Amino acid sequence: MTNFEKLAGTYETTPASEITDRIGRFQILLQREEIEAAFIQQLIDRFYFSGTVQDGVIIIPAEGEPVFLCRRSVSRAEKESALRIVPFRSFKDLPGALQEFQVSDGPKLGLELDVIPAAMHLRYRSLFPNAQWADLGSLIREVRAVKSPYEIERIRAAGIQVGMVMEKAAQVLNPGMREVDLASQLEGRARELGHQGILRMRGFNQELFYGHIISGEHASLMSHIDAPSGGMGTNPSVAQGAGYRVIQKGDPVNVDFVGNVQGYLIDQTRLMCLGQPDTVLSDGFRQAREIQERVIEAARPGVTWSSLYDIAVKGAEELGVHDRFMGPPGEQVRFVGHGIGLEVDEYPFLAPRLDMEIQQGMVFALEPKIFHPGRGLTGIEDTYLVTQDGTERLTVTEREIIVV
Amino acid sequence: MTNFEKLAGTYETTPASEITDRIGRFQILLQREEIEAAFIQQLIDRFYFSGTVQDGVIIIPAEGEPVFLCRRSVSRAEKESALRIVPFRSFKDLPGALQEFQVSDGPKLGLELDVIPAAMHLRYRSLFPNAQWADLGSLIREVRAVKSPYEIERIRAAGIQVGMVMEKAAQVLNPGMREVDLASQLEGRARELGHQGILRMRGFNQELFYGHIISGEHASLMSHIDAPSGGMGTNPSVAQGAGYRVIQKGDPVNVDFVGNVQGYLIDQTRLMCLGQPDTVLSDGFRQAREIQERVIEAARPGVTWSSLYDIAVKGAEELGVHDRFMGPPGEQVRFVGHGIGLEVDEYPFLAPRLDMEIQQGMVFALEPKIFHPGRGLTGIEDTYLVTQDGTERLTVTEREIIVV
Repeated sequence: MTNFEKLAGTYETTPASEITDRIGRFQILLQREEIEAAFIQQLIDRFYFSGTVQDGVIIIPAEGEPVFLCRRSVSRAEKESALRIVPFRSFKDLPGALQEFQVSDGPKLGLELDVIPAAMHLRYRSLFPNAQWADLGSLIREVRAVKSPYEIERIRAAGIQVGMVMEKAAQVLNPGMREVDLASQLEGRARELGHQGILRMRGFNQELFYGHIISGEHASLMSHIDAPSGGMGTNPSVAQGAGYRVIQKGDPVNVDFVGNVQGYLIDQTRLMCLGQPDTVLSDGFRQAREIQERVIEAARPGVTWSSLYDIAVKGAEELGVHDRFMGPPGEQVRFVGHGIGLEVDEYPFLAPRLDMEIQQGMVFALEPKIFHPGRGLTGIEDTYLVTQDGTERLTVTEREIIVV
Repeated sequence: MTNFEKLAGTYETTPASEITDRIGRFQILLQREEIEAAFIQQLIDRFYFSGTVQDGVIIIPAEGEPVFLCRRSVSRAEKESALRIVPFRSFKDLPGALQEFQVSDGPKLGLELDVIPAAMHLRYRSLFPNAQWADLGSLIREVRAVKSPYEIERIRAAGIQVGMVMEKAAQVLNPGMREVDLASQLEGRARELGHQGILRMRGFNQELFYGHIISGEHASLMSHIDAPSGGMGTNPSVAQGAGYRVIQKGDPVNVDFVGNVQGYLIDQTRLMCLGQPDTVLSDGFRQAREIQERVIEAARPGVTWSSLYDIAVKGAEELGVHDRFMGPPGEQVRFVGHGIGLEVDEYPFLAPRLDMEIQQGMVFALEPKIFHPGRGLTGIEDTYLVTQDGTERLTVTEREIIVV
């Protein structure tokens, strides 16, 4: 069994050392922000800090040992998590549970205000009437942005998986098939290769089902989500991704596919063409790839997130495609890449006016896309790991148009 | 082309009459609660009241015509929605947009406090400092619980789809295959038959990927979600549904599958067995089916939600399976059914202490399940429409163990 097969076919729990390291790095930020204790509730944050998604609340004090108050399943949480597990039944037990941490009388407490429902925040406010509430969203994103070797190994395996999915695409793509038929086959292949199916996004109302397998003029349609592609989808309640368009000879087909191994995601886009691409497609693809290369040339620890975005936009200007870069004219999104890990929309964002720095261990997808309204979309997307002095590509598919 | 093929293979927009009716029924509730205007933000609520998921905010006044403030894609929203579409860029424009509705100076305004992020609520509070805020969650659920003939037609089509998925299951189930391999084939079949893939749940941290295809002792594992089954899943970040267990001769296999046509869902569970079931399985299945029948016998407009739950529990007691009904001992969930439509967790909940009444047009899934720890799960689930004087079953698969 290769390492990929092992990772993609085994139910593995997160090592205790991972959890300790993550909590330790988070506690430094809590201390910096003078937050006495954090309540962690969102499914993926809970998984990150505990190793389990079993239901409950993790209390992480600024110093000292955290506790997982678990509603259910307690027995699974105990098996999966290195944290101390304490069964609990109701929110009303939270003030009692907090007492052991000796927080002050009018404490500053942290909640994931960016993701928990407003009604839950109101409930916390009535349970802790003297507390001040800090939003943990950006602190958690900051910790999660820098990946450990353990995490990188899983993202790397997801890169192998998505490469194998692309090989399947080259085998099965045929004129006369609908976008959904191609999607169905690639989704099935991914599942065989250990893909968990479900994808998580942190942003409110953001959702994604494997990615965007879209073709021809449908590929140049934008939609509601924060992404530089949309597609038609199968009905207006989805309005993105594969739809019922029949793929024809000469069509460009955009395969934007999110791989997944043990919870960890990777993002890759390749352009396929049924027959030799014309110059619109081949020039558009080369331009997108050149923009990607210019950004990667500059990407290393210490440069700002926005400086990478600016390089992409400057490249699009110099190549004369600025008005249809990252969206058709009038509908362009203002980013060219995004961090990825347990969720699709992680830090860093390669977007304007963000002066945070790229750090070693960050993993981001870089997806320059050029729109040809009425014709399609040419673009490329790879996922990169930030190394000591540059980047390493974690997606493995050859960076050319796949001609079928 | 049959009606099923048309519904399951076409990108259709919601008729204007549907939208008008939904808004009208919602406005009656706004008036009852003295809420002057409602801001609708959540993706599925937006789809329900407008016919599009394009991004933005719908303002629905207690009386008069609503407006969809659309961020993007405006052109798609205009094509898909019968509402008046007004492009807007930023939350800061909301107070200006509300002016046309002549609300009072210190108005009572509505937000989906059960689902919007806490940070968004705080933003509304700073934009409208004199307003009082009401939670729209239960009002919206009340409106959405009663389905129109248009909606029922789509749920009915989803029933046909899920029946065809079960036929596929009977064809492909084989000893030696992993749960995920069976899942992969059924998911692929569903996609061919018009399933959109992505499923929506309203509850915070609730998620589901097609359903639970789980076997043997893994099927008796509970997990974090509010459901009477869990399963192992492929990794601890998912912890539900199909996993890597290899299905063997004699195993019970639980196929809980959510069908979907044009956004509308239906829920069905059937028990499969590789070879003739032993008495544990056949008795357990018959008991679950008998409990289901007793509930359906009583289900009609005017009975309370909890009375149907009580009948199920009484049935489990009389059949001597009360200690392992809806969960293994100590881990039982306290409901036996749930409404279903655009989301899996809709009104009504067949659960204790809920004295709201069943109404004509409601659609609910009824899923008595009996646990055999270490061995598996026997249960059945069907989805029913409430008619004038009883119910009609919308799932079509024969209500027997499927022996392969």
